[in-house]
Amino acid sequence: MSTVPATNNRQYRLARRPSGLPVREDWSFTTEPVAEPEEGGVLVKTLALSLDPAMRGWMNEGKSYIAPVGIGEVMRAGGVGKVVASKSPAFAVGDVVYGTLGVQEYARLDAAALAKGGLSRIDLRVGTMTQWLNVLGMPGMTGYFGLLDVGQPKPGETVVVSGAAGAVGQTVGQLAKIKGCRAVGIAGGPAKCEWVVKELGFDACIDYKAGPVKDGLKAHCPKGVDVYFDNVGGEILDAVLTRINRKARIVICGAISQYNATEKPVGPANYLSLLVNRARMEGIVVFDNADRYGIAIAELAGYLKDGRMKSREDVVSGLETFPDALLKLFRGENFGKLVLQVAEG
Amino acid sequence: MSTVPATNNRQYRLARRPSGLPVREDWSFTTEPVAEPEEGGVLVKTLALSLDPAMRGWMNEGKSYIAPVGIGEVMRAGGVGKVVASKSPAFAVGDVVYGTLGVQEYARLDAAALAKGGLSRIDLRVGTMTQWLNVLGMPGMTGYFGLLDVGQPKPGETVVVSGAAGAVGQTVGQLAKIKGCRAVGIAGGPAKCEWVVKELGFDACIDYKAGPVKDGLKAHCPKGVDVYFDNVGGEILDAVLTRINRKARIVICGAISQYNATEKPVGPANYLSLLVNRARMEGIVVFDNADRYGIAIAELAGYLKDGRMKSREDVVSGLETFPDALLKLFRGENFGKLVLQVAEG
Repeated sequence: MSTVPATNNRQYRLARRPSGLPVREDWSFTTEPVAEPEEGGVLVKTLALSLDPAMRGWMNEGKSYIAPVGIGEVMRAGGVGKVVASKSPAFAVGDVVYGTLGVQEYARLDAAALAKGGLSRIDLRVGTMTQWLNVLGMPGMTGYFGLLDVGQPKPGETVVVSGAAGAVGQTVGQLAKIKGCRAVGIAGGPAKCEWVVKELGFDACIDYKAGPVKDGLKAHCPKGVDVYFDNVGGEILDAVLTRINRKARIVICGAISQYNATEKPVGPANYLSLLVNRARMEGIVVFDNADRYGIAIAELAGYLKDGRMKSREDVVSGLETFPDALLKLFRGENFGKLVLQVAEG
Repeated sequence: MSTVPATNNRQYRLARRPSGLPVREDWSFTTEPVAEPEEGGVLVKTLALSLDPAMRGWMNEGKSYIAPVGIGEVMRAGGVGKVVASKSPAFAVGDVVYGTLGVQEYARLDAAALAKGGLSRIDLRVGTMTQWLNVLGMPGMTGYFGLLDVGQPKPGETVVVSGAAGAVGQTVGQLAKIKGCRAVGIAGGPAKCEWVVKELGFDACIDYKAGPVKDGLKAHCPKGVDVYFDNVGGEILDAVLTRINRKARIVICGAISQYNATEKPVGPANYLSLLVNRARMEGIVVFDNADRYGIAIAELAGYLKDGRMKSREDVVSGLETFPDALLKLFRGENFGKLVLQVAEG
């Protein structure tokens, strides 16, 4: 069955590798006709895309946990869409799905991509479309497995998370509270900090723009830091290292402060605190847990339903705004999980 | 029973906290009469002292895994000695013992120190006096528990260790070989590298003075690095971070390159390799394993006996040479575990 619309597909492609913050010249905005899906494949209309700090890393050359986006290729992005044409028995027209759709209005996925689990049906009764890109999507999975598997928080311990008002941070702090921990966020500006405490129920939030993070940690983590979930790197990671407890666990999830560095990034000068405190710093990549996403989604959806977990998304509209929208992340301008709405549905 | 010698006890005391490399003015060389042990205590004549990089850290003020040496106090040092007077039922005159004797010719240990396990009898048939400060002493324990518990090497994996010709490094590399791993050392100069390979049986040794460590790792770790046991920190740690495998374990044992830094130490700029590789960096402090030293000593003594493990000590003689002898460590001038011989026995 096929209902391929007689329209064009607009796409953002990587024109060149950026140095520092991506600029308009790093992108090409292209248009091509929407094509039929291949035999065994589907055509998905993009509804909303997830904009994530990790995208900056995908634009760089070199070995990483995932291949870089090639020059001339459509920029990689996860998103929610609707199946508009299907030559696959696994998906029907009208299915709402999550997958790596790319920064484009229509995504064609072939049989091989589908066989690798490249597309999954989502249920909008369990969470809204934007929640499926947030708590129930990659950020939620990252927070869930990073905190629970690597951070291993025990009731009564203190969990600190940077980027607390961001996508991953929301989940981490609220989940820490649910697991019986003291949750302390680090975020930029009074509005985010107030929201994190008053709406999400963190015990405290340190405004890194208002004063030294070290002082905030002293004030709000009187028993030290047992788990630090790091999304930012740089000076904040270094400050937390001075306050960790014996056998502390530091989850290295990201380092948004370093992603656009044009010089060599700054390492954590206080890393010997790991030695003094017999502590651990460990990196995570969410994709390693793909076989357990279902478990995490079921648990997190339960918390959304019973009100123990809330979410906030910062929605920007229009595919054409992508280059500027992405920069909001690196300027700390997004308030909640940043989502690019591409179509109404 | 008491046979307190009618002589003086010469001691090195910390006169002030050093800035950078310790200089003569940081020490005071004092003399006091040898005194009777207290009731329940013992008097030990120092035979040989262990000189370790960690001593530099003990001279600094501030919270660490152990209290700093106070100004005016005898410098802390582990050593082997002979009991010359005993008012404790646990020790007899003539017993050869290991304990924290301090940089002095005679150490008085009171009942409280003995109750905490501050002194243990050693058997010179199992290892020589200097081996009891090396493979069978704190460096050996550090290498054993750091490698096995934190590094968790599996047969066929590649283990890299810096300071390979030093006290901890010798044990780590040889133990890695015994456990079925490829062992690659990093050391300074051709003599040390040759000894590590030809005498100790490492598969390779990279001379960090001869060229970029990164190139050496490429050449000698064709399958990447699974375990890195770090004694040095700084640029070498950063270089190894670029060559680690997925799920690699980095054991942070020390950072001799940073101990005398007068500016803020340099952090590992490539630490995000932990994220890309889902790898771990974890600190160790040997004292945490005190209840299992016996297990480690039994195993390591077996390897010494059957020839699978060798050791080398660099022995400097004379208590008075202590300030200069200690500096050999930080200049990389010691070849093997550095020992200060204080008396003949």
